[in-house]
Parts: sequence; structure tokens; C-alpha cells
Amino acid sequence: MRADLKLVTQKTDTSVNKHKSKGDLTKSLILDAALHLAGRDGLEGLTIGLLADRMNMSKSGVFAHFESRESLQIEVIQEYNRRFKQFVFDPSMKLPRGLPRLEMMLDLWISLSISELTTGCIYISGAIELDDRPGPVRDELVQIVQNWRSALMRAIQQSIEEGHLRNNCDPRLMLFAIYSAILGLQHDARFLQVEDSIDVAKICLKKIIDDRKPK
Amino acid sequence: MRADLKLVTQKTDTSVNKHKSKGDLTKSLILDAALHLAGRDGLEGLTIGLLADRMNMSKSGVFAHFESRESLQIEVIQEYNRRFKQFVFDPSMKLPRGLPRLEMMLDLWISLSISELTTGCIYISGAIELDDRPGPVRDELVQIVQNWRSALMRAIQQSIEEGHLRNNCDPRLMLFAIYSAILGLQHDARFLQVEDSIDVAKICLKKIIDDRKPK
Repeated sequence: MRADLKLVTQKTDTSVNKHKSKGDLTKSLILDAALHLAGRDGLEGLTIGLLADRMNMSKSGVFAHFESRESLQIEVIQEYNRRFKQFVFDPSMKLPRGLPRLEMMLDLWISLSISELTTGCIYISGAIELDDRPGPVRDELVQIVQNWRSALMRAIQQSIEEGHLRNNCDPRLMLFAIYSAILGLQHDARFLQVEDSIDVAKICLKKIIDDRKPK
Repeated sequence: MRADLKLVTQKTDTSVNKHKSKGDLTKSLILDAALHLAGRDGLEGLTIGLLADRMNMSKSGVFAHFESRESLQIEVIQEYNRRFKQFVFDPSMKLPRGLPRLEMMLDLWISLSISELTTGCIYISGAIELDDRPGPVRDELVQIVQNWRSALMRAIQQSIEEGHLRNNCDPRLMLFAIYSAILGLQHDARFLQVEDSIDVAKICLKKIIDDRKPK
């Protein structure tokens, strides 16, 4: 099933051209609705029935695009990841190696994860939701989160190589502090609804970076 | 309903003496099972039916102790909070004001939240789960989390007053960094299953404190 899913995702990926078939378009619209539902009710709250309801489609109509609830959940994660890549990762890669790139990654991640237009960061909400539910959905999310953390780790290491950060800076500890601050932001902004949580998080991230700059 | 709940909780609180009625005992056992279920499936996954199943009781038997699913969820949060107070807050209060107390609060919180014997920290998992679900369950959790954050804030401020931390240390920023590190620990330990995540989190917390000590 996973191989098929990969193929489907590739099809979606190349469909940015105008030759999108009606089936592909319907599937994109379903995925979009599914992303919103997953943002509201969590990945586990996502069912074919609820989605059919939201789309004014029959259950079998939705089933024609996703073989099972599990494959739907996996595709929602992959779709979120595709958007994350497009919105956060790709634009950051255009900046010079080192600190400029790392800072852009964090800026765009913050913008995406707290944006009211999105569903919150599935990397984060999914992590809590699936933390003790073994299976392919969890495996997919772990893989995708690990990829993003590896990208952050590379950017930290390159910042050290470029001399933007000190040689004795521990990249793993820095990654932990950075990732934790973004978790803290999501917590304070969405759960506690602290008004200036973005400012506090940005000051915290700036301090994490500044503390490690060459003196 | 909330007034009734408060009363019930008080009854449970004073029942540490040996004169626990059979009804109180049953209720304690149900709450214990409910805490485990909430840890596994989240607060939203908690239903009277599932709980009756787990307890080998009839649904109406469980309903006799909790008027509704919502009141069950609220009592589970209050029960977790009672244990948190007993395990983390009360022992810390026995230590001297300032850094000794703050450090003990963090140590015990870490022990509780990553313990395999518990269900993970409901303060944290519930926050993600309920972040956009308005209602009395969310309100209860927000209140309890805010109480705990106020206690941490007081301990930080007292550490400054006692001269254990520098005068120019920003308590809000420090609280954000500390709370974020605990969120990061829960994430890495339970979701990514990083083996030495406790060590990394402890080093991170130590650095947060050390950076703010008088030079």
C-alpha cells in the first residue's frame, strides 16, 4: 500500500501544471478538507465518514480516492509535509549557508505554525497524539519530523563551519533548545492564548542563537 | 454541575483516612482506570462505554459516579492535578525558597512526566488535544496549567529575591524557556523515543539556570 501511496503523492506533486485531471482535483480538495479536519479534531479524529459529510460526497466516493482511513491519514501527513517543504524549506534553501538560512527556517516555521489560516503544525500536534500508538501512521510522521530535524541540524552545523556560531557549540543541545521553543510557542499561542507569545518565543530563539555567536 | 464536582473532589481528598466508603473506593478505581485510558487515547478518547468495558461494569454503573462524559473528563484532570500536587508540588515546598525549591520542582516534574508508570503528563498532552476545543474541560485544564505556571513563576522570582539568580533576569522569558524544555523532553522521549533525551533536557535546563546565576 505504501508504494501506491508514494506514486499517488508524486502524481499530486507534478500536478502543479494545468493538466490536472478531474480525479486529481477532487482528491486535492478532499485532502484540503482533511487537513482542516485533522487540525481541528486531530489525525485520530479524521474519518472517511466525517470527510464525506464535509465534502457533500458519499462515503464510497471518498473511498475511491483513499483505500482506508489509515492511508487517508498517511496522505494527510504527506500533504502537510509537501506544503511545509514549499512554504518553509525551499525558500530557506535559497539563502546563504549558515546562520542566514537557519534564521529563515525558524522565521518561516513560526509563521506557518501559528498562522490562523493553517491548521496548526501537524508535526507537533500529531507527535503528541500518536506518541504511543504504534503503526504506519506514526512511522510516517516520525520519519517526516526526523527529516525536518536533520535539516535543522545541518543548518546548525553549517553555521559552525561558516564561523557564524562558535566551535564549542553543541549542535544537539542547540537543536533541542530550538525545537523546544517552537513547541512552547505552539503551546502558549494555541492553548493558553497568550497574546504576545510570538514575541517571547522570538526573543528566546534570538538568545539561543546569540549565546552561541563568536565573542 | 461544577459546584457538585468540587464537592465530590473534596470528598475524595479527605478520604485518605481509612473510612473510605465502598462507593468512594469504586470511584477511585474508576478514576485510576480513566487516567490510564486518557494517557493512552487522550482525554477526547475517554468514553463512559470504554471505561465500563475496562472496569467490567455496566455503563449505568459508571454513570452513577459521573453524570456525563464531560464531568468524567473534568474529574480525570482534577485527579491528575491532585497527584501532581502530591508528587511534585508539596515535596518541593519543603525546600528553602529560591533555587533549591525551583530545581526540585523541575526534577520531580521530569520524573513524573516521563515515568513509564504514569500516563505521561496530561498538562502537556491535554494542551495539544484541547487547544481549539472551547468548553468547560479545556477551561479546567487551562486553569490548572496556569496555577502550575504561576507556582514556577513565583519560584523564579523568589530565586531572584534570594540572590540565587541575577536581578536582570527576565522571569517570563525564563519560564518560557523552562516550560518549553519540558515540552521538548516529552516530545523526544515519548514520540521520537530518543534514548538519552532526559540527559539532554537536564543539560538544557541546567544551562537555562546557570546562564542566569550571578557571576
